[in-house]
Amino acid sequence: MPLSIHGYAAHSATAPLGAHQFERRDPRPDDVVIDILYCGVCHTDIHQARNEWGRSVYPIVPGHEIVGRVSAVGREVSKFKVGDTVGVGCLVDSCQHCASCNAGLEQYCEEGATWTYNSVDRHDGLRTFGGYSERIVVSDKFVVSISDRLDLKAAAPLLCAGITTWSPLRHWNIGKGSKVAVVGLGGLGHMGLKFAKAMGADVTLFTRTPGKEAEARRLGADHVVLSTDPKQMAAVARRFDFILDTVPSPHDLNPYLNTLSLNGVHCLVGLLEPIEPPVQAGMVVLGRRSIAGSAIGGIAETQEMLDFCAEHGIVSDIEVIDMQEINEAYERVLKSDVRYRFVIDIASLKRAG
Amino acid sequence: MPLSIHGYAAHSATAPLGAHQFERRDPRPDDVVIDILYCGVCHTDIHQARNEWGRSVYPIVPGHEIVGRVSAVGREVSKFKVGDTVGVGCLVDSCQHCASCNAGLEQYCEEGATWTYNSVDRHDGLRTFGGYSERIVVSDKFVVSISDRLDLKAAAPLLCAGITTWSPLRHWNIGKGSKVAVVGLGGLGHMGLKFAKAMGADVTLFTRTPGKEAEARRLGADHVVLSTDPKQMAAVARRFDFILDTVPSPHDLNPYLNTLSLNGVHCLVGLLEPIEPPVQAGMVVLGRRSIAGSAIGGIAETQEMLDFCAEHGIVSDIEVIDMQEINEAYERVLKSDVRYRFVIDIASLKRAG
Repeated sequence: MPLSIHGYAAHSATAPLGAHQFERRDPRPDDVVIDILYCGVCHTDIHQARNEWGRSVYPIVPGHEIVGRVSAVGREVSKFKVGDTVGVGCLVDSCQHCASCNAGLEQYCEEGATWTYNSVDRHDGLRTFGGYSERIVVSDKFVVSISDRLDLKAAAPLLCAGITTWSPLRHWNIGKGSKVAVVGLGGLGHMGLKFAKAMGADVTLFTRTPGKEAEARRLGADHVVLSTDPKQMAAVARRFDFILDTVPSPHDLNPYLNTLSLNGVHCLVGLLEPIEPPVQAGMVVLGRRSIAGSAIGGIAETQEMLDFCAEHGIVSDIEVIDMQEINEAYERVLKSDVRYRFVIDIASLKRAG
Repeated sequence: MPLSIHGYAAHSATAPLGAHQFERRDPRPDDVVIDILYCGVCHTDIHQARNEWGRSVYPIVPGHEIVGRVSAVGREVSKFKVGDTVGVGCLVDSCQHCASCNAGLEQYCEEGATWTYNSVDRHDGLRTFGGYSERIVVSDKFVVSISDRLDLKAAAPLLCAGITTWSPLRHWNIGKGSKVAVVGLGGLGHMGLKFAKAMGADVTLFTRTPGKEAEARRLGADHVVLSTDPKQMAAVARRFDFILDTVPSPHDLNPYLNTLSLNGVHCLVGLLEPIEPPVQAGMVVLGRRSIAGSAIGGIAETQEMLDFCAEHGIVSDIEVIDMQEINEAYERVLKSDVRYRFVIDIASLKRAG
């Protein structure tokens, strides 16, 4: 008998999110049933709730930064047991046999990954619903373990903002001796600073806003460069091995490219739109630089990141909200008025009756 | 006493090239004096002769695909002796102490390399003049050896068109098992096909013009894809590890990016202008692809390439012209009416009296 679930949903692109009751599937043999404790609020949630990517099917229950506790497991599940603290990120399934899946990079599944919400389950054809809800049912292959040593509410954003910055830093072998710059100080950017620093890199924050020095240093930056100041930009010409660009809207890459060393990489993690104004090809040709991109991360590397976080005591900086505050929170996200991620206390769903 | 030299020069952006007498420096202790046999005609020669990059200082003696024979050496030169067959490419000097020079990548010299023409010698402040001339004087560090086993006139384009395609293929570790595509079948593209094939890759030519199949296969292509045919493009989605893009004018990269596999690299070697129309960032983010660039190559890798060419019998496909035909040749280059590189027989300079 399918589970009846309380949650919050968008019912159209223009309506505010509101309480919503829906069903989840009966657990399959490989499923883990998770009572959700916390769910982070990602900018993607807003894009999807408001159909800004044109692919929303309503109702949508957003949320893909999920931390919870296992309340039941299917008969084939051996990796998790009732009571375990676990997480679910952006992915809940993939084809499991393409080159990307075989490489543990399910986010690049060639047949298309199954996303945590606004997607279709590849086995029963039912729509997926995310973490703005009291419970979720996910195949054990897409569930990760979270150490109880971590502040669980502050760990929730690791499942998207964390892995999105972790994966490229690891893929491009950032470590001691690396010179890394982070563009943008939001949910992703603040995790980029923390991870790059913990990996041993010399870390710079590029910012367009003066006065962020102390805050940036607290989060792991060794240097802060005001990207609107040509003098400061000229002083870091050819300096960086790797730029982690977390900005979610089109912006001029050329001034940043000029700060990359020979073989340097400018990696986009927050942008899907056209790269405008256009990049000067000479900026990459004359210096053998690259403009690259990276999308979230695979399940194995998500677990690796969570284990690293437990070892190094790394979590996100967050503001906890009740489910009922989600619409105001969205407005504040759009104004970058959050340090640095909202996390919904899912217990508030019950308080609302 | 400086050497008096016959050559061909552009005296303004609009005048045709014509005979020109000029001086070269007295050989310095590390200099090699080279009697030029052949000089290739590169599109860059036209850009510079016509001041299309806005940095031309007249008169300009173009030419940076130089093959000749050593006629004298300075007292410190031990690597070359009179009678040796040698080559000179785009570079005649660099700072010799920055990170790029130390890595043998003088083309990326942080203080700026000294170019073979339309540049200023970093020791005596005199302007440099290129290979459309009977003789050149170059520091031994920037002279490479050429095997007499090679057809010397057809070896000339290796010094620019060759190294420009060799360097990125080597840097990105192309070899057996690699799937490489080449965009554009000109001076650079035809060398890209030959090298990629000789390195063991599975090689595809992207072309906008039907009917090039036989020619492409003769040059090393295993497959030919008509890039204007959406069906053919869809059939190679996610196929290539590496795209060598030799097109010298702005063009849409998005259809090519879609044919890159996970971690695939689209490498620009012919373009310095803005990348327009804009690249969709999603094309790089969703697949961890890169848009990279590469400029010619360093001296050590130029020698490595020439040795590889001698071993594998690789040269360019050329049309030999007399110096007096250079202006007509430029017009034909602009119409892509050459298979695949013009090479000037410098002996024709003397015939002209």
